[in-house]
Amino acid sequence: MSRKSKEEIAEIYRQMQDHICQSLEKADGNGKFREDAWDRAEGGGGRTRIFESGAIIEKGGVAFSAVHGPTPEKILQKLGLEKADFFATGVSIVLHPFSPMVPIIHMNIRYFEMENGVNWFGGGIDLTPHYVVPEDAKYFHQEVKKVCDEFDSEYYPKFKKWADDYFFIRHRNETRGVGGIFYDRLSGKTDEEFQQILDFSLSIGRLFPEVYGYFMEKNSKIPFGEQEKAWQNLRRGRYVEFNLVWDAGTKFGLDTNGRTESILMSMPPQAEWTYMHEPKHGSPEAFTLEHLKKEMDWLTFVP
Amino acid sequence: MSRKSKEEIAEIYRQMQDHICQSLEKADGNGKFREDAWDRAEGGGGRTRIFESGAIIEKGGVAFSAVHGPTPEKILQKLGLEKADFFATGVSIVLHPFSPMVPIIHMNIRYFEMENGVNWFGGGIDLTPHYVVPEDAKYFHQEVKKVCDEFDSEYYPKFKKWADDYFFIRHRNETRGVGGIFYDRLSGKTDEEFQQILDFSLSIGRLFPEVYGYFMEKNSKIPFGEQEKAWQNLRRGRYVEFNLVWDAGTKFGLDTNGRTESILMSMPPQAEWTYMHEPKHGSPEAFTLEHLKKEMDWLTFVP
Repeated sequence: MSRKSKEEIAEIYRQMQDHICQSLEKADGNGKFREDAWDRAEGGGGRTRIFESGAIIEKGGVAFSAVHGPTPEKILQKLGLEKADFFATGVSIVLHPFSPMVPIIHMNIRYFEMENGVNWFGGGIDLTPHYVVPEDAKYFHQEVKKVCDEFDSEYYPKFKKWADDYFFIRHRNETRGVGGIFYDRLSGKTDEEFQQILDFSLSIGRLFPEVYGYFMEKNSKIPFGEQEKAWQNLRRGRYVEFNLVWDAGTKFGLDTNGRTESILMSMPPQAEWTYMHEPKHGSPEAFTLEHLKKEMDWLTFVP
Repeated sequence: MSRKSKEEIAEIYRQMQDHICQSLEKADGNGKFREDAWDRAEGGGGRTRIFESGAIIEKGGVAFSAVHGPTPEKILQKLGLEKADFFATGVSIVLHPFSPMVPIIHMNIRYFEMENGVNWFGGGIDLTPHYVVPEDAKYFHQEVKKVCDEFDSEYYPKFKKWADDYFFIRHRNETRGVGGIFYDRLSGKTDEEFQQILDFSLSIGRLFPEVYGYFMEKNSKIPFGEQEKAWQNLRRGRYVEFNLVWDAGTKFGLDTNGRTESILMSMPPQAEWTYMHEPKHGSPEAFTLEHLKKEMDWLTFVP
């Protein structure tokens, strides 16, 4: 078995974008993706797809890109790499639902390769409910673990911890949501291992519309009022804070002259900030804050 | 004439906070400041004042702080300083008005001193209109220049350029607003020079309620509708982007375990993001975008 080329991987990821967009349009029932194709001056380009007029999804994007050229100096420095041209391809998704009862979701699968032979996969999927609901968090982690376990029983515990550490709003001492998995610089010694990691990323890609379709269907039926909308907007503010202050991908993209509108498609449609907001003791909002913590074991959680 | 001590400067700045808060309450006519006094574990503290229920100001804060202790390692590194205890005091303000026709404003005056004798003043004032109006920008820059010129004819051109460079949203290739002045690490060789720089910062402090009072009075009478409110929310989104991605003070505060709620009092009450928003050709919104540029000479601007 020979190793897939970077062009083949890009084509597989491009098809993954198609698959995910079709699935989300079907699950939403009303919205459609609008495509923006763009070119990168230094090489490559992408197609950013933005969801519009959704019944369930208020704002969201599913982006594919495959870019190449001289590796930016900042990336070489940051990652401790020797100078060589790079190629990077991936699918990146953030969806903000209308309903505060439906969680925000993020997924990313990516492949990076340099002309000198350096290469790795990275990615992750994590859930950011406006209201933490233990059964939902459990369901999400169960499904993610199932996919991980098909490949390596060490993946889930390792990548779950990595997500806890990565999706952490340090200045709030809060996790962004209930976590999920995050992995980076994963490569294989043999062609078989390389293929296995690619397959793992594709399984995460296929899991995405299934698991989010489940929440779209189930949670969009839950009634809510103005109080829940107000809370949603505060949580969206936290999402903005995480992405602009701590998210390595966002910071790096903005710092290296990436395509701003594609990078910031992760921003919510609206967000709010209230000075020193404190939810009422015993409220679902307070419960949420109390459970946005690292090292929550959602698989076995008992309230 | 002897040099003012750090404690005396802190006291003068504390009184400046009082003066500004009283002036703003009077100009608004309805809102009142709520005070949050806080202590810093490592030494010192502050009083953050948040404006509530304003007729003109929707959300804003006027913060005073005087903190001291061992200089955080990150600050030593970043500023290239030798290890010694520090003392820092200042007044920091951001005001977000209800009306999109009234500009957002920011002002900061601060003093930093180390036990080894290192010391300097920093600060600035800048205006962020949701709609760029050349006469308003001209008025603002005239008033700021007048204060600068009382001290040193080189201040205005030098600090105006510094503000253009500092208040710049690099990933949007836009200035945050119509600029103003920014200065840092300004010290005096003699006691007289030191006093002059302190006096300069106090003149900026006194200018603040005068110049903003002018805009509160004049611009809050201008009618507006839903279109202007929607644009305001997009511009507020840009304000968020600048503060969380590029503002050195904000980043640094969040990175060194500063008081999050005081640092993020600069956040607007709401903000919005729309993918690839482009204002109509020839609209006031398009005019605004076209003029959020560095090196605009607002004093002599002719449209």
